[in-house]
Amino acid sequence: MTERPFRRLALIGVGLIGSSIARAARAAGLADEIVANARTETTLAKVRALELADRAEPDPARAVEGADLVILCTPVGALAEVAARIAPCLAAGTILSDVGSTKQSVIRDVEPLLPQGVHFVPAHPVAGTEFSGPEAGFAELFQGRWTILTPLAGTDETATARVERFWRAMGAMTARMEPGHHDRVLAIVSHLPHLIAFTICNTADHLEQQAKEQVLDYAASGFRDFTRIAASDPTMWRDVFLNNREALLEMLARFNEDVQAMARAVRWGDAGYIEDSIARGRRIRQALIEKKQA
Amino acid sequence: MTERPFRRLALIGVGLIGSSIARAARAAGLADEIVANARTETTLAKVRALELADRAEPDPARAVEGADLVILCTPVGALAEVAARIAPCLAAGTILSDVGSTKQSVIRDVEPLLPQGVHFVPAHPVAGTEFSGPEAGFAELFQGRWTILTPLAGTDETATARVERFWRAMGAMTARMEPGHHDRVLAIVSHLPHLIAFTICNTADHLEQQAKEQVLDYAASGFRDFTRIAASDPTMWRDVFLNNREALLEMLARFNEDVQAMARAVRWGDAGYIEDSIARGRRIRQALIEKKQA
Repeated sequence: MTERPFRRLALIGVGLIGSSIARAARAAGLADEIVANARTETTLAKVRALELADRAEPDPARAVEGADLVILCTPVGALAEVAARIAPCLAAGTILSDVGSTKQSVIRDVEPLLPQGVHFVPAHPVAGTEFSGPEAGFAELFQGRWTILTPLAGTDETATARVERFWRAMGAMTARMEPGHHDRVLAIVSHLPHLIAFTICNTADHLEQQAKEQVLDYAASGFRDFTRIAASDPTMWRDVFLNNREALLEMLARFNEDVQAMARAVRWGDAGYIEDSIARGRRIRQALIEKKQA
Repeated sequence: MTERPFRRLALIGVGLIGSSIARAARAAGLADEIVANARTETTLAKVRALELADRAEPDPARAVEGADLVILCTPVGALAEVAARIAPCLAAGTILSDVGSTKQSVIRDVEPLLPQGVHFVPAHPVAGTEFSGPEAGFAELFQGRWTILTPLAGTDETATARVERFWRAMGAMTARMEPGHHDRVLAIVSHLPHLIAFTICNTADHLEQQAKEQVLDYAASGFRDFTRIAASDPTMWRDVFLNNREALLEMLARFNEDVQAMARAVRWGDAGYIEDSIARGRRIRQALIEKKQA
């Protein structure tokens, strides 16, 4: 029998991403044992009922004991506290990774707390659905999707390569990026679209009652596409916005300039500007289709 | 044999909507004869190749001769010119309808040109895809979708009811609305989402080259949902924006206020405000799912 890549995998947090890792890692035979930690007894009960792990452990510090791979899968706003609790129990040689959508904040919150000899490899699987919780996960979530690693200057190359192989074995493609660059790219590609989707739902929600009901009736004409991404997990997204503030506000400022230019073109009947803007949108869609990402 | 509801149906414009009406009306046996008019020889050739109509007619004035139902299916910006050309050939008793996404502008542009005795029933099938042209249409496009009629105070009730039955026979649900109310509802539910989708594609397109390519790689994380609606027909959408200017700018102003409030919450770390906004988005999504519109 071939030796498995890791002896004990500890997952801190078992929502959509954590539970999908549990399923995918087991399916691919990536660890001899999987330990899952969750904050509430309700979630731990679901982990047991769904048989997501070999052990459901309420104490994060105990969950990481003896693990050679620990992955933090809580919302990024909880990582500082989680890292403080588990740090004393991380043995030298342990690989610590995460799945946070913001990377500079994770490095800022976690790295200073780690004992010497722990290999910290920040990572972000760019995958998800609008559903959340342990029952929402599935083993195929990462297949054909990117996982971005943002190793630090001093990160052990062997550890980084092992985390890369771990994600590839679950079907993901991997890329490496500088943490700040990751945060700017994700701000425009993910965080800003979510902020806008939440906002337009609010704008609709503030309409007088009759118009609001008609918004629901006629949603198929465009609005519906915004509501899908607006259904995502509130805690996760609150934390993302607050932990990628600078990049998000920068992209939002650019978007605002563009939206004002569009409003001005509509007000003054600048047909050429409007057509040109729409044509750019189509070209981007076309490029996505060519990249088979559409 | 049961008599068909109309003797001759004339379609002025055979893009996605016009060609879908041709297919659906034929499938449902709604007219003895279908005449299709298009502006270019290329489109007329497609109409003939796809056998969408009994006759492909290059002259709109000749196309409407002898028709008892005429439906204008061009972009709304072309309707004034089209109406001027066909008006002299519309016989008394003819029902004239349209499929424009803006209703006040259509009434403003078309109604004053019509001879006495022509029954004008403005309509808007709230259906579509991101594809355009006669080859993009299909007979099932309107099934389970709303068609909104905005009859004028003086519109003949029999004519309005016949247009309603026509749409229901193609599988649509019908509703009646005051034209100005239609334009405000569609501004928030359709026109504003499209404007925002086009704009965020532009914001991404203006990034430096490397970041732009990464936007395409990681589009699945939110951006992709915006590009689908940003792929829609440029001429149609330019015309919609310019012809629903007041309502669109009003909804855009409301959205801007909400987006600024969100930006402020992100800047100052107002977690409560952000959570509340996200929770509203989820409730709207939930309401859509309950209405089976999601």
